[in-house]
Amino acid sequence: MPKIDLDAIPAITTTGYPSPYDRDVRGRSWRSLNQPGGLADFVANHVTLAPGSWSAQRHWHEGEDEFLVMVSGDAVLVDDQGRTPLRPGDCAVFPKGDGNGHCIVNEGDSPAIFVVVGLPERTDCHYPDIDLRVDGPTQVYTHKDGTAY
Amino acid sequence: MPKIDLDAIPAITTTGYPSPYDRDVRGRSWRSLNQPGGLADFVANHVTLAPGSWSAQRHWHEGEDEFLVMVSGDAVLVDDQGRTPLRPGDCAVFPKGDGNGHCIVNEGDSPAIFVVVGLPERTDCHYPDIDLRVDGPTQVYTHKDGTAY
Repeated sequence: MPKIDLDAIPAITTTGYPSPYDRDVRGRSWRSLNQPGGLADFVANHVTLAPGSWSAQRHWHEGEDEFLVMVSGDAVLVDDQGRTPLRPGDCAVFPKGDGNGHCIVNEGDSPAIFVVVGLPERTDCHYPDIDLRVDGPTQVYTHKDGTAY
Repeated sequence: MPKIDLDAIPAITTTGYPSPYDRDVRGRSWRSLNQPGGLADFVANHVTLAPGSWSAQRHWHEGEDEFLVMVSGDAVLVDDQGRTPLRPGDCAVFPKGDGNGHCIVNEGDSPAIFVVVGLPERTDCHYPDIDLRVDGPTQVYTHKDGTAY
């Protein structure tokens, strides 16, 4: 069945962020859209942000584009250029290597839902605001200097 | 600016389909989401179907997955399994090589809008209902036996 039964997909609410960076994403849940339909060429995730939740700490990827489609609710895209409201139907692109850290924040009173698409992550991810980094080859979170948490 | 200004992207309303297969997609317009934001890892298109329009002739790709997010309006997904309503927020996956021809039809009274994502098309595309085929290496439409239109 090409249409995905979202309710049948387990929602993931955990994060690999070390404390205290995990707090901002506590209201985030996401579902992988790859497994049920056999999607293999890229990664697609369905993300729900409870009121107050962030999609992620502000970050950018060295080697993978990200593409976002806002599905329902309102949210704010935060990046180096400031704050941009996102409404259902809005699309956004975060090109690899642009150095523009971004995240989505739900400042409203109802859930904000979006779908995000990208290639599997294999490169460093940078967090301009905090002492965090993802090491490309291992995809493990480290301090900015590469030491372990 | 990561958020894409859809109104600034030219809408494409032409099709490469030979007559009479072009008629069903006359109410289709689409915008490429790659150019304005610098998206390069995959192809993303924003598609609007006027009432009565089809997204495409029913088809499947040998070598590229397709992923769809319904953004607004209602539509019907038509494939080998029958007819499946699509509403805003619904997602669908069309895995490469599955032999299940699919298309989206707007049977309603208002526009139906979706975003579709895939890798650049490089393989044969098959149209089970009509005498049409896309040749992989050239991406040219031919008869099913490979002769030119």
